[in-house]
Amino acid sequence: VSAGPAGLGALFHPRSIALVGASDRSGWSAGTFGNLRGHGFPGPVHLVNPRSEIVHGEKAYPSLADVPGPVDLAFVMVPTDAVLPVLRTGAEAGIRAYVVLTSGFGETGADGARREAEVAAFARDRGLTILGPNGNGYINAAAGITPYGLPIPPPLLRGPVGVVLQSGALASSVLTFAQARNIGVSLLVSMGNESMLSVADVVGYLVDDPDTRVIALFLESVRQPEKFVAAARRALAAGKPVVALKVGRSDLARHTAQAHTGALVGDDGVADAVFRQLGIARVRSIEDLIITAGLLAAGPLPGPRLGVVTPSGGASEIIADRAQDEGLELPAFAPATVAALAAILPAFATVANPLDVTGYVVKDRTLLGRALEIVTADPGIDSVLLLSELPRDVPADPPAIRALFEATAARIAAAPRPVIVVSNSLTDITGFGREFQASTGYPPVVGGIEHGIQAIGAAARWSRAHQEAVAARAEPPRPGAADPAGQGADPAGQGADPAGQSADPAVNPLGEVSGTWAAASGTWAEDRAAAVLAARGVPVVPTERAADEAAAVEAASAIGYPVVVKAVAAGIAHKTDIGAVRLALPDAGAVRAAYRDVRAAACAAGGDDVRVLIQPYRTGGIELIAGVVRDPAWGLVLAVGLGGVWVEVLRDAALRVLPAGPAEIRRALGELRGAAVLQGARGAEPADLDRVAEVIARIAAVATHLGDHLESLEVNPLLVRGAHVEALDALITWRS
Amino acid sequence: VSAGPAGLGALFHPRSIALVGASDRSGWSAGTFGNLRGHGFPGPVHLVNPRSEIVHGEKAYPSLADVPGPVDLAFVMVPTDAVLPVLRTGAEAGIRAYVVLTSGFGETGADGARREAEVAAFARDRGLTILGPNGNGYINAAAGITPYGLPIPPPLLRGPVGVVLQSGALASSVLTFAQARNIGVSLLVSMGNESMLSVADVVGYLVDDPDTRVIALFLESVRQPEKFVAAARRALAAGKPVVALKVGRSDLARHTAQAHTGALVGDDGVADAVFRQLGIARVRSIEDLIITAGLLAAGPLPGPRLGVVTPSGGASEIIADRAQDEGLELPAFAPATVAALAAILPAFATVANPLDVTGYVVKDRTLLGRALEIVTADPGIDSVLLLSELPRDVPADPPAIRALFEATAARIAAAPRPVIVVSNSLTDITGFGREFQASTGYPPVVGGIEHGIQAIGAAARWSRAHQEAVAARAEPPRPGAADPAGQGADPAGQGADPAGQSADPAVNPLGEVSGTWAAASGTWAEDRAAAVLAARGVPVVPTERAADEAAAVEAASAIGYPVVVKAVAAGIAHKTDIGAVRLALPDAGAVRAAYRDVRAAACAAGGDDVRVLIQPYRTGGIELIAGVVRDPAWGLVLAVGLGGVWVEVLRDAALRVLPAGPAEIRRALGELRGAAVLQGARGAEPADLDRVAEVIARIAAVATHLGDHLESLEVNPLLVRGAHVEALDALITWRS
Repeated sequence: VSAGPAGLGALFHPRSIALVGASDRSGWSAGTFGNLRGHGFPGPVHLVNPRSEIVHGEKAYPSLADVPGPVDLAFVMVPTDAVLPVLRTGAEAGIRAYVVLTSGFGETGADGARREAEVAAFARDRGLTILGPNGNGYINAAAGITPYGLPIPPPLLRGPVGVVLQSGALASSVLTFAQARNIGVSLLVSMGNESMLSVADVVGYLVDDPDTRVIALFLESVRQPEKFVAAARRALAAGKPVVALKVGRSDLARHTAQAHTGALVGDDGVADAVFRQLGIARVRSIEDLIITAGLLAAGPLPGPRLGVVTPSGGASEIIADRAQDEGLELPAFAPATVAALAAILPAFATVANPLDVTGYVVKDRTLLGRALEIVTADPGIDSVLLLSELPRDVPADPPAIRALFEATAARIAAAPRPVIVVSNSLTDITGFGREFQASTGYPPVVGGIEHGIQAIGAAARWSRAHQEAVAARAEPPRPGAADPAGQGADPAGQGADPAGQSADPAVNPLGEVSGTWAAASGTWAEDRAAAVLAARGVPVVPTERAADEAAAVEAASAIGYPVVVKAVAAGIAHKTDIGAVRLALPDAGAVRAAYRDVRAAACAAGGDDVRVLIQPYRTGGIELIAGVVRDPAWGLVLAVGLGGVWVEVLRDAALRVLPAGPAEIRRALGELRGAAVLQGARGAEPADLDRVAEVIARIAAVATHLGDHLESLEVNPLLVRGAHVEALDALITWRS
Repeated sequence: VSAGPAGLGALFHPRSIALVGASDRSGWSAGTFGNLRGHGFPGPVHLVNPRSEIVHGEKAYPSLADVPGPVDLAFVMVPTDAVLPVLRTGAEAGIRAYVVLTSGFGETGADGARREAEVAAFARDRGLTILGPNGNGYINAAAGITPYGLPIPPPLLRGPVGVVLQSGALASSVLTFAQARNIGVSLLVSMGNESMLSVADVVGYLVDDPDTRVIALFLESVRQPEKFVAAARRALAAGKPVVALKVGRSDLARHTAQAHTGALVGDDGVADAVFRQLGIARVRSIEDLIITAGLLAAGPLPGPRLGVVTPSGGASEIIADRAQDEGLELPAFAPATVAALAAILPAFATVANPLDVTGYVVKDRTLLGRALEIVTADPGIDSVLLLSELPRDVPADPPAIRALFEATAARIAAAPRPVIVVSNSLTDITGFGREFQASTGYPPVVGGIEHGIQAIGAAARWSRAHQEAVAARAEPPRPGAADPAGQGADPAGQGADPAGQSADPAVNPLGEVSGTWAAASGTWAEDRAAAVLAARGVPVVPTERAADEAAAVEAASAIGYPVVVKAVAAGIAHKTDIGAVRLALPDAGAVRAAYRDVRAAACAAGGDDVRVLIQPYRTGGIELIAGVVRDPAWGLVLAVGLGGVWVEVLRDAALRVLPAGPAEIRRALGELRGAAVLQGARGAEPADLDRVAEVIARIAAVATHLGDHLESLEVNPLLVRGAHVEALDALITWRS
């Protein structure tokens, strides 16, 4: 109740503020008071101190109860043990919103966590909203409300970027850097311990905040993943980009799932996959966080096909290199563009994309602007990068330079395609430059080629994700799209199932399929796992269980030689390692011998409930792994990869948090470094990627269906020969 | 003669300068004159203009011949056709050094190239030195000599970084950015067309220049590779780091060699390998170029084991992530360090590397400096990163802040390990910050975590390369190290040769080995290529040539079944593709049939001089490719890689420019993404990497031995089973 957007609206828009624990000896108090007074908070600021009548040169009250008039927000800087009493007094006085700067809570260990839980429980009980504790507060630059405990470096630029930080100390760096880029902030929030309000809450608030066009995040960990995902989905659909600097890339912690897949899924890999699925632009530096957010907030977004106009051959080449890094295209100019450029450029200029108008621009300053106008008309490009610098100080010839920038600004405003202005390198936009830009109507200048191209790449990717999200919402729901497994309404999948398995659990040959899984435990070896998959429409290699040698030979004859004979058992996850698998058996004699051998091997390895299975021997094709494991934060995560060196040596896997449909999975397959193998590299038959994605979506849907009790589900290998896709082995592990 | 270091010393240290083509209407002229006057050139600046008596408010002379007194440097801005006459006059007047700014030469096409060649020929003939044409000149900041055609943004900071640019327009960006980083320049040279002086010449000069501690390069292409390599080797040995931003990474041009190797060797990959071999730090942005050069120039270099001291948990985590990207370690602190830190930090601080001293630093400003002092004493680290910002403007409490920085500066000066100060993000060092730093004795502040960690990584790598270069010089030459193939002095290689091939050409079974290769042409298929390799000590699979079916059976019996039967022929490079290879033949009947089949296949494919070869059939082991191709710029380049998907799909190859000895090749093998396979991943027997590197060094030496006529030499596959290394197939292509 208290943490909903309505509560946040009140928190971030108080008309009056009380500083509780205000003191002349406290840097936090002086800083916060100075920020409120210095950045134009229009309402009353009340100071509360039980031991001083005058603080910061103004009257102080002994307690919140003594403050005259209503208080919309209490900013709490008292010692740790005094926080709860302050909340009690405030609640009695009808104060609903609090920023708690005080530390000594969960960040200090178990005792602190207990204190924090007590405070949060009280707040929930009384309907209070708390930001923090152990945070610096917030800066509502849009409204001029700055209850924030550290000095705010002047000038505080108002603008469209909402910033949410899971680090107090970084806020100053972010503000300083944003100012140096002339990028303004709507609301900056230092989260602290998130005892009540989480990043997800604030992101949800910013999605609806009209002053915010882009949301920039610094994340250590996402504390409420489901709420975060929901807020990010809303942001993507609403066209409000989210950029995130998430640390922990170097965290090598892995899950301990028994399946191979476990080793492929690092915490950070999952976060990466989640961000990609949500269209969140992930960056690795403060610079990229702010520059990308600034570009995304600035206006019409660049697409992936870029025209480049520069006065420098060297810079053009740097741009070409970086554009390729970021997956951007620099298409050849259309013939009409080439002709028009050739007509204005000196004879020794090379007319190409990226374009260098040459040093002749020193003689004819209009050359760059005229070339820009021509390139923006090219039909083969989405947007234009113009390499240009704002003056850092009063130029040699102010009126001429001003007229030049005004002319270019007018050209950009009239251009049929977005123009992104990028400087050569990342140097501050000076105070003079900021003023010059505003007065000439020049567009924002993105900070240098290196970070600018990164930002353009991120913007192009975000645009595509946004368009896909909008298109997915506009599409009528596809039959079986949400749960493609085992649906009678999806005959294509069944018809293409060459393994001849029926999807009806009732006639499953192993007869072990059940609709509820709460009682399942331990590890389910191949036959049981395969039966579950087959029952929900996943094509599985035909499998016969043989009770003795004679039955094994009979099954092999029915299947057709050569065959595979395996022993499976409870407690044995890796049967090949213990010698319980025999491949390519050519005749009855070999099957009899193999039956004895594999049975003995499984028994010797201590396997319980040993079963011997007979299957056809498959050769050729491409082997995939499709596994689902449970991530402690994000839930079920699908990993797909190619078998062999690809996963074992290269750890080449693409991840998706479930649910994920066939289109999403097809994209994941395309992300694999070994994707060329699926397309027929090395003489393999090209895989029918639609069919592969469809089958993997079914496997994923089985995992979802198995519910909260599932630890992991892995199909390894999943054999692909063209449109023939078939699970050759499977393993299910249940949570203990 | 004219382009040697002596000539460059005169070029870069003139005592008098004439501006030829000086004119009030020329921006270049006004700019150059202003630069010379404004940046303190102490000698006379003579103006030459045949049509004006007064230029820039001073007396002008009609011709160089009329200038009174000696002229050390003529700065030429006349029209293209007037350049040669100016040189004639200057040569007559005894002027030896020229900067030619004029364009219209090689950059404009064939006519211009002819004009340029004419000018260069004249200069060579008369012993003149020309920088350019089509360049902006140079800035000798160390000496205050600035014959440079574009405005130099003030202030011009003098310092230890020499800059050489193959782009005129980028010089301004480089200067602006370097100033914003408070990094000073010794000499900046804009190369222009390099018609006489090349980048290699200037690098060679800077290696010996006492004002230059680091050399920063912007490169489009290296015009004199051998001279460049020699200069870079001298720089590495002299301990003078070279940092290079080389464009053309996105150049997808590939060589058209027939061998597989050709596709692995892109121009840029070769440049990358050359730079790595030479210890040149390659960067991708102007920011990294200058920041890395500045760090390398600043003093004691950081090693790979970093201690990190910050006042911010968020920043610590960003640093940890970036450090892992750059191959830097953040070792755990020693117990004594932990104890000492725990004694000064607040109880809720986590004592770990990276260290966050916490926001308590707001209360106790000395905390960061005291923690720094403790961490610099830790024996397990090489150097310390201190996260700290210079003030951007007058701080709130100037004496206290000044005292704080002075105290930290003193701690850093006294520290037993280098301390690198890095700011959070990349914002300008302001004029105030620059002055504050100088007056407090604070060390240089590296520009932001993102670029700073990149620079520290580059510095650590450079240090290692430098130490290796020094150690290699100190070592006595190893027998066979320069040319390890076919040396009787290297019995280990021969003794380990399991193929039983003699290294003596005289007894080679195929009798085709020759000492001179000038007459060789076309493609040499397996047997001829293998004979060349075997003759120089490369172990090759035993091979018998069979003239008929009976001889084939006899050879197979001698070799032992199973065997391989292949037909080779001139003009057939890929014999497997045409069905001319039969593997795993078990008996005489199979050999007879195979003999007929492969012979027919080779004949049908139009092969000339068809031979049938019998070899043992090898199974298991790891297959490598070792190929040498000729790069048009850098000469013979060795590519090593793993067979199969590694080279075919992943293009996973490591390159080295020849010569490269076993140690260098062993490092190259370690760079492969599939390196784990060589160490025994996926159940393979671990390769004896010393033996593998030794054999590949022999292959490389064969290529070197074959000389200028060789186009490519490829061994594919090179079979490795532990210490057993054996070429199973080979191909030589000669230049046409």
